[in-house]
This record gives sequence, C-alpha cells and structure tokens, in this order.
Amino acid sequence: MRFLKGHGTGNDFVILPDAPELTPSLVAALCDRRFGIGGDGVLRVARSSLPGVDWFMDYWNSDGSLAEMCGNGARVFARYLESAGLAAGTVPIETRAGVVRAVIGEQTISVDMGLPKVYGESTATVTGRVYEGTAVDCGNPHLVCPLPDGVSLSSLDLDRPPAYDHDFYPAGVNVEFYEPVAPAHVRMRVYERGSAETLSCGTGAVAVATVARGAASSVTVDVPGGRVQVHFPPDTVWLEGPAVLVAAGETTIAG
Amino acid sequence: MRFLKGHGTGNDFVILPDAPELTPSLVAALCDRRFGIGGDGVLRVARSSLPGVDWFMDYWNSDGSLAEMCGNGARVFARYLESAGLAAGTVPIETRAGVVRAVIGEQTISVDMGLPKVYGESTATVTGRVYEGTAVDCGNPHLVCPLPDGVSLSSLDLDRPPAYDHDFYPAGVNVEFYEPVAPAHVRMRVYERGSAETLSCGTGAVAVATVARGAASSVTVDVPGGRVQVHFPPDTVWLEGPAVLVAAGETTIAG
Repeated sequence: MRFLKGHGTGNDFVILPDAPELTPSLVAALCDRRFGIGGDGVLRVARSSLPGVDWFMDYWNSDGSLAEMCGNGARVFARYLESAGLAAGTVPIETRAGVVRAVIGEQTISVDMGLPKVYGESTATVTGRVYEGTAVDCGNPHLVCPLPDGVSLSSLDLDRPPAYDHDFYPAGVNVEFYEPVAPAHVRMRVYERGSAETLSCGTGAVAVATVARGAASSVTVDVPGGRVQVHFPPDTVWLEGPAVLVAAGETTIAG
Repeated sequence: MRFLKGHGTGNDFVILPDAPELTPSLVAALCDRRFGIGGDGVLRVARSSLPGVDWFMDYWNSDGSLAEMCGNGARVFARYLESAGLAAGTVPIETRAGVVRAVIGEQTISVDMGLPKVYGESTATVTGRVYEGTAVDCGNPHLVCPLPDGVSLSSLDLDRPPAYDHDFYPAGVNVEFYEPVAPAHVRMRVYERGSAETLSCGTGAVAVATVARGAASSVTVDVPGGRVQVHFPPDTVWLEGPAVLVAAGETTIAG
C-alpha cells in the first residue's frame, strides 16, 4: 500500500493516497510509532460525492477512532493534493464536519475553520494552582487560560492532564495556556482532550487567538512545534501555517 | 534519499541503504518521530574493508550520537541485507564493537552477542523500594534485578529512572527487572541508560537470561515489545528474535 508522511507544526500524519476503506486496527497499526510508520492520525484520500467538491478527507485518530475534522490534518491533506498535481490555489475539501476551503501557498497552507463561539468562563487546575480561563467552542470544546504574572509557560507541568470542571465540560476539554510575546503575538501550550500535551493543535491555536486578539485582525501563535497564524476576516477564521511532506513509499502493514 | 523502516520486538530503526556519510543533525532529523520518519536509531548500510566481511553497520542513536553495537539493530540490518538479496544464511557484519555473525531465518534472526561477564552485586531503588540485583557486562553495563515475592512486573513505576549506585556504575547502567513465567522462561522490563523504559533491549535480554538461566541452555525472554530467545552454547551467547521491515520509500529530510 502506498503511503506518505507529513506534518503541520509537528502534528504528523500518515497519508494514504489509494487505500481501500480503513479499519480501526489498520489505522492503529499504521500509526504505531515503533511497530508501524507512526503518526497522530491517518488521512485517507478519497473522492467526494458532493457537487463541486472533488476530495473527501477520511481522517482517523491514531487510536483507530474516527474524527470529524482536524485543522492541521486538512493543511497536510491539501499539501498532498498539490504535490500530486490534484489541486492548486483554493481547494474545497469534504470532511465529516462539512466542507472546508484550503488555500495552498508555497510555504503555508490556510484552512477556513469557521467561526469559534465564546461561551463562558471556567477554570483549570495544574499542580494545585487554579487558572481562570475562557470557554471557546471550535467544533470541539476549549478552555483558554492566560498565564498570570509570575508564571511562565515553560514552567507549567503538563505531564499530567489539568483538572477541569466536569459539569461545565461533560465531554472533556482541550486546555490551552498562553502568554504574550508582542502585540498580536502569543505563545501557547495545549493539553489535548483524551491524549496528552501535543506539539500543535489547530483548533487550540484558533481558540487562543480568539481570546487573545483584542482588536487585531491577525494573531501569530507560537506552538511548541512551530508557528501558525490566525486571521479574522468578517465571517470566518483562517488558520495558516506550514504543511510539509517528508517521506513517501510503500508499506506492508496490514490491519 | 532511499530509506526503509524496520523493528525487532519494537526497537525500531531507519535503514539507509545508499546514504553518504551521516551527520548528527541528519540522524536526529530522520529519527524525530513527529517532524521526521521516527526511530530509535539509524542503520546506514556501508561496505566493510575487513577481509571476508562485506557489510559495515554504521549505527547511530536517535539523538545523533554514535553507538558501538545494538543487538536488535544488527538483526534488523541482517533482515535488510536478506530482503535486498545481499545476504543469506550466515552473514558477518562489521560493527564498531567488532564483527558479529547473524544467522538469517524466515521468522527470526540470531546474532552472536559474545560472552557476558557477571561481575558483582548492586541495588536499584524504585519509588522508595530497594531491589537487589546482579551486575552484568554485555559490552555495556547492566543491573539485573529479580522481583521479590509480592511485587509484580506490571506494577513497577518506571516512568522515572531507577536510582542506582553511582560509585559502582560511574558511566550509568541499564536496569532490568524480571519475574519467572515458567522454567527457562522469564518476563522483563528495562530502563535504558540515558533514555527511558523501552519496548526491548537486546543486551538487556542477554543480561537477564544470563542471571536467570540456571542450568538451561536456552531462555525465552518476554520483553514489552515481544519475545526473544537467548541461547548459551559453550563459547558465546546468541540473541534470537523477529526482525521485520514495515515500509520503504524516499525521504526529503536533510540534516
């Protein structure tokens, strides 16, 4: 089976250009970092049946579960389409969360993430200290916590999941912490729901930028795996960042 | 640049069949599990200049440092030679620790590991409890601790490195814990020096089998990543286990 490997700011994927329908066990075997190829998820390239849309991003998490959408995954998916000569410029991509548009640039790829919704306040607790934050819905739930004076981002212990209010977030939450770098420029870390601290989270960057932007129309967000930008035109939000393919070949892994 | 990926009981490697001389930065970039291909190390396939030896295993650790020898790496290296039609049966392989012989079977590959040396007693401490063990030199230093009654292998907390006697092991130590499964059959976990708990360690399996064997001429060793066997003919020790290639392709990663 043919595969490629690529990443967006360290969020990495196994891309399958011509695979048949996937199974959870095959996805988990491909994503295993020791016994397989390794990745945070699989992006199967499939045809869309929607009018005017050629491609469906069949995205799976590394544990073999299905996911609706992944901002970094969509950017890497678009990079594959471009590299294979299947798309250029702006390409619509069907996902389980609807159709997203990707704008393919030489260095970066932007994806239309829709409008996030700010819906309240809550708290996260890390090593006994309580952090106040803002709840943001980007299709998935987030809690965005600005760091108070005297606490540095690098000193936070995110080896364990932050504690959160289960009544407020019955389905769990992605918790972001951020500190300012310059006007319209922040640095963040993220603990992803049901996973761990990760090098990058597309919706997390959008959530942080939404809270931190003030009057800015674009925010630069430094994540542990690199740098993305979040743009705020009137009716939607765009996530822009690098998307890179690093390898291509054939694998004998079967589910 | 062409590459393959393979593993022996979960100890995984990037194999470079026709790469030029490596640099630490290129090795680290290839082994990076998010931004690169991912592996515990790189095996560059090179020609040997020794009489009667065709191949040199140019082995590097994932952090870009050089290593003398790696038992699981040698087995995966031999599997590559066989798959490429470059070797069959018994093949001598030059390493920085000398020439080792590999015997290529359909399911398993065996490597001649030399004679380990038992040289004393020491202790390791895990979550406040002291474990007595035997010091074994397999080219690298080991401390092999049998689990006392009432302690199960799965309950050990190896998220942090076991504490050890720095006077006894000035260059650090690989710490193994094991429990019996059946006669001539043990189950082990290993905390590798300067690294972390790993799924498999070839010299660690040899060290454990050396301590646990009693009168047995072969010992089955279950490691977290699978099963190996250690054989004790008169003058050396053989490590036998599976070695699998899972992918092959081209990468654009540069150092």
